[in-house]
Amino acid sequence: MTKPVCLIVGAGAGIGGNVAKRFAREGYHAVLARRSDKEGLDRLVAEISGEGGSAAGFLLNAVEDGSIERLVESIEKDIGPIEVAVFNLGAQIGSRALANTSLKAFELGWRMATFGLFRLAVTLFPYMEQRGKGSLLVTSATAAVRGNAGQHSHAAAMAGRRMLCQTLNAEFAAKGIHVAHILIDGAVDAPDTLGKMLGPERYQALREAKGLAKDGLLLPAEIANTYFHVAHQHRSAWTHELDLRAFSDLAWWNHATSGNL
Amino acid sequence: MTKPVCLIVGAGAGIGGNVAKRFAREGYHAVLARRSDKEGLDRLVAEISGEGGSAAGFLLNAVEDGSIERLVESIEKDIGPIEVAVFNLGAQIGSRALANTSLKAFELGWRMATFGLFRLAVTLFPYMEQRGKGSLLVTSATAAVRGNAGQHSHAAAMAGRRMLCQTLNAEFAAKGIHVAHILIDGAVDAPDTLGKMLGPERYQALREAKGLAKDGLLLPAEIANTYFHVAHQHRSAWTHELDLRAFSDLAWWNHATSGNL
Amino acid sequence: MTKPVCLIVGAGAGIGGNVAKRFAREGYHAVLARRSDKEGLDRLVAEISGEGGSAAGFLLNAVEDGSIERLVESIEKDIGPIEVAVFNLGAQIGSRALANTSLKAFELGWRMATFGLFRLAVTLFPYMEQRGKGSLLVTSATAAVRGNAGQHSHAAAMAGRRMLCQTLNAEFAAKGIHVAHILIDGAVDAPDTLGKMLGPERYQALREAKGLAKDGLLLPAEIANTYFHVAHQHRSAWTHELDLRAFSDLAWWNHATSGNL
Amino acid sequence: MTKPVCLIVGAGAGIGGNVAKRFAREGYHAVLARRSDKEGLDRLVAEISGEGGSAAGFLLNAVEDGSIERLVESIEKDIGPIEVAVFNLGAQIGSRALANTSLKAFELGWRMATFGLFRLAVTLFPYMEQRGKGSLLVTSATAAVRGNAGQHSHAAAMAGRRMLCQTLNAEFAAKGIHVAHILIDGAVDAPDTLGKMLGPERYQALREAKGLAKDGLLLPAEIANTYFHVAHQHRSAWTHELDLRAFSDLAWWNHATSGNL
Repeated sequence: MTKPVCLIVGAGAGIGGNVAKRFAREGYHAVLARRSDKEGLDRLVAEISGEGGSAAGFLLNAVEDGSIERLVESIEKDIGPIEVAVFNLGAQIGSRALANTSLKAFELGWRMATFGLFRLAVTLFPYMEQRGKGSLLVTSATAAVRGNAGQHSHAAAMAGRRMLCQTLNAEFAAKGIHVAHILIDGAVDAPDTLGKMLGPERYQALREAKGLAKDGLLLPAEIANTYFHVAHQHRSAWTHELDLRAFSDLAWWNHATSGNL
Repeated sequence: MTKPVCLIVGAGAGIGGNVAKRFAREGYHAVLARRSDKEGLDRLVAEISGEGGSAAGFLLNAVEDGSIERLVESIEKDIGPIEVAVFNLGAQIGSRALANTSLKAFELGWRMATFGLFRLAVTLFPYMEQRGKGSLLVTSATAAVRGNAGQHSHAAAMAGRRMLCQTLNAEFAAKGIHVAHILIDGAVDAPDTLGKMLGPERYQALREAKGLAKDGLLLPAEIANTYFHVAHQHRSAWTHELDLRAFSDLAWWNHATSGNL
Repeated sequence: MTKPVCLIVGAGAGIGGNVAKRFAREGYHAVLARRSDKEGLDRLVAEISGEGGSAAGFLLNAVEDGSIERLVESIEKDIGPIEVAVFNLGAQIGSRALANTSLKAFELGWRMATFGLFRLAVTLFPYMEQRGKGSLLVTSATAAVRGNAGQHSHAAAMAGRRMLCQTLNAEFAAKGIHVAHILIDGAVDAPDTLGKMLGPERYQALREAKGLAKDGLLLPAEIANTYFHVAHQHRSAWTHELDLRAFSDLAWWNHATSGNL
Repeated sequence: MTKPVCLIVGAGAGIGGNVAKRFAREGYHAVLARRSDKEGLDRLVAEISGEGGSAAGFLLNAVEDGSIERLVESIEKDIGPIEVAVFNLGAQIGSRALANTSLKAFELGWRMATFGLFRLAVTLFPYMEQRGKGSLLVTSATAAVRGNAGQHSHAAAMAGRRMLCQTLNAEFAAKGIHVAHILIDGAVDAPDTLGKMLGPERYQALREAKGLAKDGLLLPAEIANTYFHVAHQHRSAWTHELDLRAFSDLAWWNHATSGNL
């Protein structure tokens, strides 16, 4: 008996890990891939198993030639059909002036955010096309639709990612492959990343500044619910593009105070 | 014991009726409002009751002064709290050249599509604000984001509707009111409207031209699933804007063949 | 000998008046229409005449039934062919919460910003179509593409205006009529309006806060240069949509500081 | 006496060459750079000189490490200050299904369209920043805002280009550097490229199919007029984004016939 596979490329303790849990809870075999932290990866896999779910973890250097390709091939060969793939690699390197954005950093952003998605689609879509179905959920960021100062690398990479979602959709939707571009418009409440980075006090202060108690940051478990919904929309009514933000945050297009109304 | 109310303004046999059924199935009292066809309205209410759900129907001339306002007030006073409102009034009048678009038709489009939504929000949001929660789901169309030839009235009205969704969201999201703009990008498979209009043969031909069997048209029951999901997203991860189209349709921004690549 | 007419609907001392001057300088007969301030209108006409240009002024209540229509008809009959029309009516009523936005204010915004443009096109385009040429330049605002809090009336109206520009372009471009939507993304340095409103000190302070000396506000005479250029683009290379902002202002989509990168 | 330099990266017989001629006619020293065809390059330079203008030509392999950088440095050192730079490299490789889009082709698209612009800005902007002024005009394509089938490489690359224009503008506009993203939405009437490719008969047929006589294709000399205008807008009223298309073409967002209205 083969479970359908949900592959998560970029499976940390935030969106990726929570999406893995959500799909595992619904009967998928979750395959979690991330660049580093074998321990954290094992812990996620153990948590899923502990809940009675099925999961496996792989360390993956996504920018290495052939790495994504080999992972996809081996899953399809040895584990089961990838029915849902979640491309969740970030490429945010903080705010950097042009003078501080190296050619290497700019290229790396593209290798992660744009080229990685292209390589995943090139490798995976022939399998999905043959089966006549499949979903590719792409985590994206505000930078995909708006270029702020200091975001040269990130914005160029995420915009390429978004437009690639459109070209993939244009070619493959009618073949049964559902591509969704999910714009995460705000900070995600990921205790293991954002929380550790800020420390407990500043973390709690940010949560409170952003909204009542903690809902002012995007909760990854809640994000995962929408990922699951989108992946299971009936093919007569697919969403290609949606945004997600906390209720207490302004949308990226709104300014708190604005001269240009 | 009071059930939460889901009010549908524009409740025919397509999206509106199916959203009513979906919410009633989940424990809402569905209030269906539509301009005409008392018989069709009663049938929808009876279908919901027959499934064990709770529903009521009202005929409503939405462009009449005070009509939406009175309905909202009376539901809040006599029936229960409107937790979800679905604004589903269409304003499509077919393709008309400028010379054939009367001042009256242009104004009526706005009264239905834009002003009606404004009046609903003005009346309903104080209740929702007091309760600190509520959802307003707005059915929208491609014309809200792209003005095609012959769509003078429709496009101007739907664009106003969309931008109003943004201003409402900007003011009320942080107060717990979730506004979602749902872009229906294609023809909806509504047997009682599209089907009757075309007749059985042309209807089936369209379905087949559009995709395998029938999934090439947007199925309203499937659309309703996404409406329900959006209305129940956790406030830490709300969607404000999403599109819905059949897998076999091109997105509005794609051309089958195109000179401008 | 008949000069071509440039009709400006909304001709105050800012964009409208400066566009009139620019076109008059290039050989057009400028027809300036505005709601009130006969004295200011006469002064503009006198300034143009004093420079050797040709101009006439009319008071026009644009929201009154038949007013725009009569003006267009009488110009075409008695003065000359309207080769360029500039629709420059604003509909900004300041920042108002939903509770403070009356039905009347919301409707008035639409009557000015959207319906006025529709009525102008309905009346004027048959003349232009017959001549196989003409330009309609539409002054627009950030609110046409982004709905900020407090902008319910303005944003809904300007979005309708923008989408109407698209439907007009879709129907009439191939007939030789050039429609351009010009998004003014910032405050315009209009001494007679903004300057009087703020008083000399606050006005100068704003200018200095916004950029070096005075260029941090949009100078209407400079805006007029771009209006003139767009109206005279060769038909093989027309611009339909462009933005204008001061060099020192952030674009509407950029935030000074932003959580959602 | 040093003339201001207008550097054109991608100077063929279409947009690039015509922009060079237009700027040379207005007193700029035009520096034309292109990958190949030394003869065609020399001919363009000779034409400009023949008209009394000043120009120089360089063969440039833009994707080679250091190539753009060396050209900019040597112009600034030996020729004069680059006041206007035109980034006109295309990256269209025709319509290719995903299966026919090699990793190499996808990467090359990015190296030309996105990374090349980044490298140009990194090298050039310090000079412009020191002078407190300068313009960067970026030729772009419909693919920057819409991903059609078969455009995987092109769309991802042009979208990255567009978003990079936004991040550059966000950081450098207030420092006096004007970045403009110019969306060419249609086929350009370039006799030496499109004309040669199609041959005289098919070329003329396309011109006639597209509009009256020849204006149905974008004429590069007319495009050049708008480039010149944008580069000389006063800093109080800069355009960041505009589109250009032939009057008889539909805008990219319009469909000739459309199911999704």
